[in-house]
Amino acid sequence: MTKSNKQQNVLIIGAGLCGSLLALRLGQRGYNVTVMEKRSDLRKVKISAGRSINLAFSDRGNKGIKLVELEKKVQELCIPMHGRMLHDREGNTIMSNYSGRSHEYINSISRGDLNALLLDEAEKHKNVSIYFNRACTSVDFEKTTAYFKDLENNNEFIEDADVILATDGAGSVLRQSYFTSKKFLFSFSQNFLTHGYKELSILPAENGGYKTFKNALHIWPRGDFMIIALPNLDGSFTVTLFLSYDEGEYNFNNLTTPERVTDFFKKEFPDALELMPNLTEDFFNNPTAPLGTVKCHPWHYKGNTLLLGDAAHAIVPFYGQGMNASFEDVVELDAVLDQYEGNWERVFTEYEKTRKKDTDAIADLAIDNFHEMKDHVANPIFQEKRKIEMVLEKEFPNHYSSKYSLVTFNEHIGYREAMLRGRAQDKAILSLLYDDKNFIIKDLKELLNKVNNHAETILKQDEIAGLK
Amino acid sequence: MTKSNKQQNVLIIGAGLCGSLLALRLGQRGYNVTVMEKRSDLRKVKISAGRSINLAFSDRGNKGIKLVELEKKVQELCIPMHGRMLHDREGNTIMSNYSGRSHEYINSISRGDLNALLLDEAEKHKNVSIYFNRACTSVDFEKTTAYFKDLENNNEFIEDADVILATDGAGSVLRQSYFTSKKFLFSFSQNFLTHGYKELSILPAENGGYKTFKNALHIWPRGDFMIIALPNLDGSFTVTLFLSYDEGEYNFNNLTTPERVTDFFKKEFPDALELMPNLTEDFFNNPTAPLGTVKCHPWHYKGNTLLLGDAAHAIVPFYGQGMNASFEDVVELDAVLDQYEGNWERVFTEYEKTRKKDTDAIADLAIDNFHEMKDHVANPIFQEKRKIEMVLEKEFPNHYSSKYSLVTFNEHIGYREAMLRGRAQDKAILSLLYDDKNFIIKDLKELLNKVNNHAETILKQDEIAGLK
Repeated sequence: MTKSNKQQNVLIIGAGLCGSLLALRLGQRGYNVTVMEKRSDLRKVKISAGRSINLAFSDRGNKGIKLVELEKKVQELCIPMHGRMLHDREGNTIMSNYSGRSHEYINSISRGDLNALLLDEAEKHKNVSIYFNRACTSVDFEKTTAYFKDLENNNEFIEDADVILATDGAGSVLRQSYFTSKKFLFSFSQNFLTHGYKELSILPAENGGYKTFKNALHIWPRGDFMIIALPNLDGSFTVTLFLSYDEGEYNFNNLTTPERVTDFFKKEFPDALELMPNLTEDFFNNPTAPLGTVKCHPWHYKGNTLLLGDAAHAIVPFYGQGMNASFEDVVELDAVLDQYEGNWERVFTEYEKTRKKDTDAIADLAIDNFHEMKDHVANPIFQEKRKIEMVLEKEFPNHYSSKYSLVTFNEHIGYREAMLRGRAQDKAILSLLYDDKNFIIKDLKELLNKVNNHAETILKQDEIAGLK
Repeated sequence: MTKSNKQQNVLIIGAGLCGSLLALRLGQRGYNVTVMEKRSDLRKVKISAGRSINLAFSDRGNKGIKLVELEKKVQELCIPMHGRMLHDREGNTIMSNYSGRSHEYINSISRGDLNALLLDEAEKHKNVSIYFNRACTSVDFEKTTAYFKDLENNNEFIEDADVILATDGAGSVLRQSYFTSKKFLFSFSQNFLTHGYKELSILPAENGGYKTFKNALHIWPRGDFMIIALPNLDGSFTVTLFLSYDEGEYNFNNLTTPERVTDFFKKEFPDALELMPNLTEDFFNNPTAPLGTVKCHPWHYKGNTLLLGDAAHAIVPFYGQGMNASFEDVVELDAVLDQYEGNWERVFTEYEKTRKKDTDAIADLAIDNFHEMKDHVANPIFQEKRKIEMVLEKEFPNHYSSKYSLVTFNEHIGYREAMLRGRAQDKAILSLLYDDKNFIIKDLKELLNKVNNHAETILKQDEIAGLK
């Protein structure tokens, strides 16, 4: 017999961004929701420094926020970033907008503030209970039972539920239980980049203002490495250094003294260094963390358990889509629930069938963008391409979207479609530029047709080769 | 101080095809080689039924056999297969050659016979010792020490060495030790197809002859599934059924009775069924096994340990390249040893740098070929493509090689180069066919130029898009 939502016990493992949005939404739908979070309540303690203090928030994430009717409150936390501001070694800057349409931009948002808001809103529902300092140790997915340790008193306990949803991040315990049980064929990959990252900061100016342009995502691209900076509401910027662990003249393994770190920044990022008197302190206080991509399949075990968010598909941060993809997961799951509510196995199967191809795509796109940000953005032919894209988007706002726009601002299409179409367009424009280096835009309508036709041919060729 | 080869102790884990070739070669080079194998000595006991009794052996594998000067002895074990013989539901057959050049073909070879030969030859060297029934349980790669269990008496023991080379297959214990130790960033993937496989057989005719054409790899392509058959020296064929676990009208999960299995074959493979009175016996005696791809990185830990063969890169069997790739590993490692012998860390680093891109490529090609074999080979446009390739190879034997030929018979180039060039050619031919369905070959020289130019354009476009 099917229980009504109110009788269904849903256990969510992990109260990060994805888990707290999910708890809120399932609370709104009437489920009896219990959330177990390993960490302390971030509304009561300071979150640890050096681990993605702020994030890019854009249209796909906003679909999730609209779903739970928090658009206005979230907007108050947002700082618009209209484009990339590129800094060269001499300190010259170029602003490269994210879109030729002025209403298309991304936002910098505080992970902590957003998570706190979602927790507050979730807890307003009587049918949602959130517990902190409860670490999941394993999941018996056949019995829909999870094992926990209460970190306050070291007691171990068991939680039973009708379904368990794991939003416990890149190191997911449910995923580990799938992997180690060997009870079914579990496809799994973890792939690390050669580079790690470290968070640094530009503190607010003495008057509390911003030391550099507020409304941009700043990039210092240097080919093999880069720093980026995103603004915070308090006037500071969170700076992230992306650098190889062991290759090149300067790398994480050999940046071992304050002098060497300062020399590195003096040589490569002199204008940033001027804004960062606290550089070496940050550098040696904050951890160096790896950059990994996780994919797996299946996400669900029958109608018992399901992986969502980073637990199912951790990605590298270079497309600014990690949180957005996780929020979109909640939107997609919610849509499948509208269709098949009452039959969890069907819900999980349909959700995975429609969603998996898109999270695979954003994972690959995010790795592409690593190379684009640290290297290609400084390449003249790439800058030419961006100029053409801007012109097309401005001139034909309803008929052209670049790959970046398709991925970031066209939230009505999936990541996979955005990737295929976007890559074909990139190839098309680069081919045109390559065939004629003195390429001059005369007739914009003709240019649009050329790019579109060429992209269509490329898509068709790929389709034929796959014999689909 | 560097020890001479004779003083260097090399421990090899696994005496399968790759491990025994490696032991032989390192024995020839003068190393003090100890090999530990989990299974019993296959020269003394019958190997278990149902797990790849025969294999495809071709030019890349033969490079390894030439290296150890066994070409003649191995040739005696080979049955040439000149092409694919395709069987439709009515029992009609078409022979589709592997190449337009008559000296290019692949061979069917018995895994057991070849492995036995390599073990015999390795043991002729006084400096090579091979132990069976010794199961590796873990490897301490920091100490270059491996832990074993003697399966004859259950005693546990430790082996120390200057280097440990793991050729212990897709379930490699060294690879597991890398993964679980978390002592370095270990990229790893295991990906399963939706299909599994089961080995069956066509027994010899009463007169000891072959019941169907001997010198071909037989395929019964049915879109979503297939059977294939490879000849054995004793007149039998080893037949393999590739079928989904749980999708489609017939699948491994629902083929649970002899009647249902017979119905399935009667409907889909009637001509094969006639040759297989032993079908249901085989079907229920032999295991159903999964089809997985394993990739990982790094393969080596400092100068201490190295993964080779399936342990480093297990692939699906559809390109007939599994053993060939593993033998090529030994050839490549041997070439790096020529350059850097005495410095194991350098040897391992250089080996992985040159080899990894190629084993990644053959892994991807093998998955492509799964779809090609079960489906595309029966597609008219694909058959047209094959015809064009045959014509070009026959007419321009020194100027054209299809993707299949590049991968299989052009052992002087790496898998990756073969993949890129081969895929571009496929796209080029399919585009020509697509643009003009009544495409008629008039001037062959013109056709060759068209295909080559189109392929070059595709390669150039891909290169530009990567901005390499």
